[in-house]
Amino acid sequence: MSNYELCPKFEAAMQLLGKRWMGLIISQLLVGPQRFGEMESSLPISGKLLSERLKELEKWGVVTRNVYPEIPVRIEYELTKRGREMEPIIKAIQYWAENSMDHSNLDEK
Amino acid sequence: MSNYELCPKFEAAMQLLGKRWMGLIISQLLVGPQRFGEMESSLPISGKLLSERLKELEKWGVVTRNVYPEIPVRIEYELTKRGREMEPIIKAIQYWAENSMDHSNLDEK
Repeated sequence: MSNYELCPKFEAAMQLLGKRWMGLIISQLLVGPQRFGEMESSLPISGKLLSERLKELEKWGVVTRNVYPEIPVRIEYELTKRGREMEPIIKAIQYWAENSMDHSNLDEK
Repeated sequence: MSNYELCPKFEAAMQLLGKRWMGLIISQLLVGPQRFGEMESSLPISGKLLSERLKELEKWGVVTRNVYPEIPVRIEYELTKRGREMEPIIKAIQYWAENSMDHSNLDEK
């Protein structure tokens, strides 16, 4: 595939990751499958926003929602193969953001 | 630095890379310094948009514009250290976009 053909996919992926808290939500799920409540209590975002983001990630095939018919019902969110394959991206960006960016650039934006 | 503190930097970097053609422009400069005209003729975008994107990248400290006082004056664009450090990100996303995404997800978006 040529670089030009890759562009829309590349940019769509970046736009997804550029949304607030997306990187952190994916990082959190890289640890392993988690229940909604667990994620909500370990992330600094509202349940409403978390649920919105998880729906977007499901639509993208990055996250899957598993329902276990127990009593009470157990619902877990898990990265799909495609989601787990994002790990090198997340790590590369985290490394770059930590080592190469300074606050002045954020202020300028 | 904690993951929470990293979020704004991470997201700002993703928003930059999510802009149309940013990934391709940076990829092009990873080859080496280039004159505006060379870039314009090898990229499928207008000179106006290319110039706008290069200015944004300069503001971010990712690209530097070198002016050589020759006759006629020679102006070259070059990645800074911070820009070259984006290579692992660009490669990781290209790999993921090529191998993990299919068109259905782009259509759904």
